[in-house]
Amino acid sequence: MSTSVEKEMVLPENEVENIELLSSIEDADGGVTVEMKEPMDSKLFASMLGSSLLYWIQQKKRGVWIKLPIEFSNLVEPTVKEGFRYHHAESDYLMLVKWIPETSDTLPANASHRVGIGAFVMNDKGEVLVVQERTGIFKGTNVWKLPTGTVEEGEDICVAAIREVKEETGVDTEFVEVLAFRQSHQSFFQKSDLFFVCMLRPHSFEIQKQDSEIEAAQWMRAEDYVAQPFNQKHEIFKNMAGICLTKSKKNYTGFSKMSSTTSSGKRAYMYFNNRDFEPS
Amino acid sequence: MSTSVEKEMVLPENEVENIELLSSIEDADGGVTVEMKEPMDSKLFASMLGSSLLYWIQQKKRGVWIKLPIEFSNLVEPTVKEGFRYHHAESDYLMLVKWIPETSDTLPANASHRVGIGAFVMNDKGEVLVVQERTGIFKGTNVWKLPTGTVEEGEDICVAAIREVKEETGVDTEFVEVLAFRQSHQSFFQKSDLFFVCMLRPHSFEIQKQDSEIEAAQWMRAEDYVAQPFNQKHEIFKNMAGICLTKSKKNYTGFSKMSSTTSSGKRAYMYFNNRDFEPS
Repeated sequence: MSTSVEKEMVLPENEVENIELLSSIEDADGGVTVEMKEPMDSKLFASMLGSSLLYWIQQKKRGVWIKLPIEFSNLVEPTVKEGFRYHHAESDYLMLVKWIPETSDTLPANASHRVGIGAFVMNDKGEVLVVQERTGIFKGTNVWKLPTGTVEEGEDICVAAIREVKEETGVDTEFVEVLAFRQSHQSFFQKSDLFFVCMLRPHSFEIQKQDSEIEAAQWMRAEDYVAQPFNQKHEIFKNMAGICLTKSKKNYTGFSKMSSTTSSGKRAYMYFNNRDFEPS
Repeated sequence: MSTSVEKEMVLPENEVENIELLSSIEDADGGVTVEMKEPMDSKLFASMLGSSLLYWIQQKKRGVWIKLPIEFSNLVEPTVKEGFRYHHAESDYLMLVKWIPETSDTLPANASHRVGIGAFVMNDKGEVLVVQERTGIFKGTNVWKLPTGTVEEGEDICVAAIREVKEETGVDTEFVEVLAFRQSHQSFFQKSDLFFVCMLRPHSFEIQKQDSEIEAAQWMRAEDYVAQPFNQKHEIFKNMAGICLTKSKKNYTGFSKMSSTTSSGKRAYMYFNNRDFEPS
């Protein structure tokens, strides 16, 4: 898509004139998105943005989105000067938005949570797979912890758990259940964390640890894992560890997964108690 | 904190000179954060940033964070030119970061998920609280849906559910359980969604709907809610509705909440099956 397009616009004097505006794509909510693909001089951009805004206002557009790749950081200032606010950023672009109507803004919220997993993997000798990390808050503490990690962009929780165990210890596993989860706030900047403790069933038992991040890895008696002073001292850890031990010994029902399709046709996983409800 | 500070720096010629650098705060991971609080000319900022970077490199700093309030959007371009990438943005600021060491970047990931709730509220006549919305994908469809919404920054899931029901229908409730949750991807930009279906117990029954967003609200026989063609046709909705109905009729155990403290002393909620595990 080229950067500019000619449109007819009715000027204040009621004259119709062809004006060069920024190319945009319309969305389903009555808004438009501009995605800059080529560099542009800041002054020229400011002028075209001003004209485009007048046109979009005449067309009664609602949300105007401008996606600026990091290579075009010279265009951030002129966009802000036209009344746009930041919406979100990734490493290589910044998304800005302006809400045109006078009614309340109904723009989608930014992502607010990071999602992490902890994997509880137990073999048939009652031993749980644990690691000691080279970095992070447990570094140098001698605490044995479950393999943990952050889910990657677009990654499912059940897939992330299997991946983290494989990366950190070399052990192959299969997802069984979500045993519990925890939500905490202001863990980094103003964002929140959701952490899911997942039970996985091992399909291999030989450990090949990831040297760059893992100091040591082993199979450890579950009771010894739970009894560690750190786990006994910190309430959430104590309870999470206790849930894992209970799961290994008796009947604890967590949330199993089921692949499903959303009303828009995308694949999604549902997690629920499948002992008490049988899906159709 | 003033914008600049004088530091001693060893120059390439081995001379020590006092140089004016950007003020920064050190973090626990060997990095520094600069938070711009006053406007600055772009060229002056570029020069001070360049000197500051040399200093931080000499000091063997790791991650360098620069927080730019939207009022200082003129400083984005010079920051990017010094090799910084975007990390995240909120409506009123942009955070940029540069990783100095040659080893792999261990910076925290950006938030990847938006978190939403759906509230299943049932009275003692077997009726569920449902709404029809004025906006969004269900607008004009005549589908009766559960009250839903997005959790706000720093808000707990169990609190968000109660708030949304109160706002949309005026009904007071108490959190009971998370019945199930669903994870989907690419729902907005490259981000993901986690949606928690929560069961709430009503403490009031008179409905006062939120006129701006809600077309209508009522108590509806649970079987009629489940039997709606939309709910029957779409797999996830069918199963979520089925879980709600099962909960209302027999023994379905979801995840109850428990307030707890993290190892860093912050309050957090754990959600787990408290029928099969009794926390200590």
